[in-house]
Amino acid sequence: MDTMKEEINQRLVKLCEPLKDGRVKDAMLYSLLAPGKRLRPILFLTVLRAYQFDYHQYLDVACAIEMIHTYSLIHDDLPGMDNDDLRRGRKTCHKEFDEATAILAGDALLNLGVNIILQTTSLDDSLKVQLTNLLYQASGINGMIYGQQQDLYFENRKADLSQLEDIHKHKTGELISVSMQMAACIAKKSDLDAWKQLGFDLGLAFQIQDDILDVTGTTEELGKKVGSDLENHKSTYVSLIGVEASQKKIEELFQKCYERIYAMQINHGLILELFIKILKRVS
Amino acid sequence: MDTMKEEINQRLVKLCEPLKDGRVKDAMLYSLLAPGKRLRPILFLTVLRAYQFDYHQYLDVACAIEMIHTYSLIHDDLPGMDNDDLRRGRKTCHKEFDEATAILAGDALLNLGVNIILQTTSLDDSLKVQLTNLLYQASGINGMIYGQQQDLYFENRKADLSQLEDIHKHKTGELISVSMQMAACIAKKSDLDAWKQLGFDLGLAFQIQDDILDVTGTTEELGKKVGSDLENHKSTYVSLIGVEASQKKIEELFQKCYERIYAMQINHGLILELFIKILKRVS
Repeated sequence: MDTMKEEINQRLVKLCEPLKDGRVKDAMLYSLLAPGKRLRPILFLTVLRAYQFDYHQYLDVACAIEMIHTYSLIHDDLPGMDNDDLRRGRKTCHKEFDEATAILAGDALLNLGVNIILQTTSLDDSLKVQLTNLLYQASGINGMIYGQQQDLYFENRKADLSQLEDIHKHKTGELISVSMQMAACIAKKSDLDAWKQLGFDLGLAFQIQDDILDVTGTTEELGKKVGSDLENHKSTYVSLIGVEASQKKIEELFQKCYERIYAMQINHGLILELFIKILKRVS
Repeated sequence: MDTMKEEINQRLVKLCEPLKDGRVKDAMLYSLLAPGKRLRPILFLTVLRAYQFDYHQYLDVACAIEMIHTYSLIHDDLPGMDNDDLRRGRKTCHKEFDEATAILAGDALLNLGVNIILQTTSLDDSLKVQLTNLLYQASGINGMIYGQQQDLYFENRKADLSQLEDIHKHKTGELISVSMQMAACIAKKSDLDAWKQLGFDLGLAFQIQDDILDVTGTTEELGKKVGSDLENHKSTYVSLIGVEASQKKIEELFQKCYERIYAMQINHGLILELFIKILKRVS
């Protein structure tokens, strides 16, 4: 998995080489290459591996997914949004550069993902269209952006559990789910729906972990400020049902994921290894 | 041309219907439907008409172009960027809504253009890939975003004429040029380069007009604040060479456009009619 992460990082650098030099490119690379888990591209590539596909052909698509994720972090951190100073253990993009550059760097990454997928020579046009469409549906106004809108709406309002799930489903779940859907779209279309559901469950589990880590983790481990949910009076799984019940919910969600995995004809070990790493994460 | 504009506006509304209701959708529609010239989609559709193509099949692609243009206006107007209060005769998006919503509405429009083109049923996959790729190359870090970066860089620095041309070429020229390139890509690929150059000349002429109108126009006519270039000590064609020489430059650029038009086997009248309207514009 570390090899895969290194390959993604190297490819991200390579893909940015043809970009015009300047402050926006510097900001894009600063945020893209900050130490991150690369969870979404790794999920995408690992699902491909589980179908015995040579994932190297799809590294560019993986990088496009990471670009979309990074754009969303840069814009979420802006003063007009969550106004965060720390991300991935570094100053946020607008703190290191400036607000205008951070807005443009986010825009540029959202924009670049399109060209990266559409210019991947190893994909045929039909697959390019399907993958790009899936990814940008997940990241758009009916997906991730809707989640961010709802998250902002409930910033100073109490959300109940189903409203919180709706936020998480869109804000976090969509991009995690689509990473696996895209792999199924390449490898085995009839499995796409199974991955979609699995992805939403995994995304929810991942987000509940975030809620817990915001209470139990340290800024050093997480690379971002902890305790901010509490400080902002934000409804979270922890504030609504407590740490213990949240932990139980995570285990139930993972259990559902395992069941779906075993129902598919793939290399189960590869996926399970990754899931266990996620389950045990401390950052 | 008014029919075409009306058709674009109606289609923009239709294309936004499937979007999840909420503040971001409201903000997208607010900015999309504000009274604008619809110059870029009209250029795209008029070039198609000049090749005897039924442009109605391509209305969605035209709308995608307008979405990209509108996103760029919303983000340019943000407090962290140009901090403008008035646009298209209305309050800017972040003034009518709020900053977070304006950031998300811009993101959502940039994102939505992708899905609109890729979901157009009358296009084959190869054309979808080419058109989307062309559009997003023009709007990205090597195109429009680079222009915006340079514009910000020279905000409080004196730019010379060639630096100013470089800004205009990217910030305004890319999207105007690509609108015509995309039509050529559909209608006659061998004409694509001619439209590309023509588009950059037209874009430069259009931008020099903006520089002049910022001095000679009224806020009422333009729907945005006038005199802001001067106030911001911004280098413009007018500040560098004066109104008269700027006017002459515009006429020279249009002359070059006319020559390129006459060299192509198209319905010249349709294009000339549109160009004359642009040449005589007061807003």
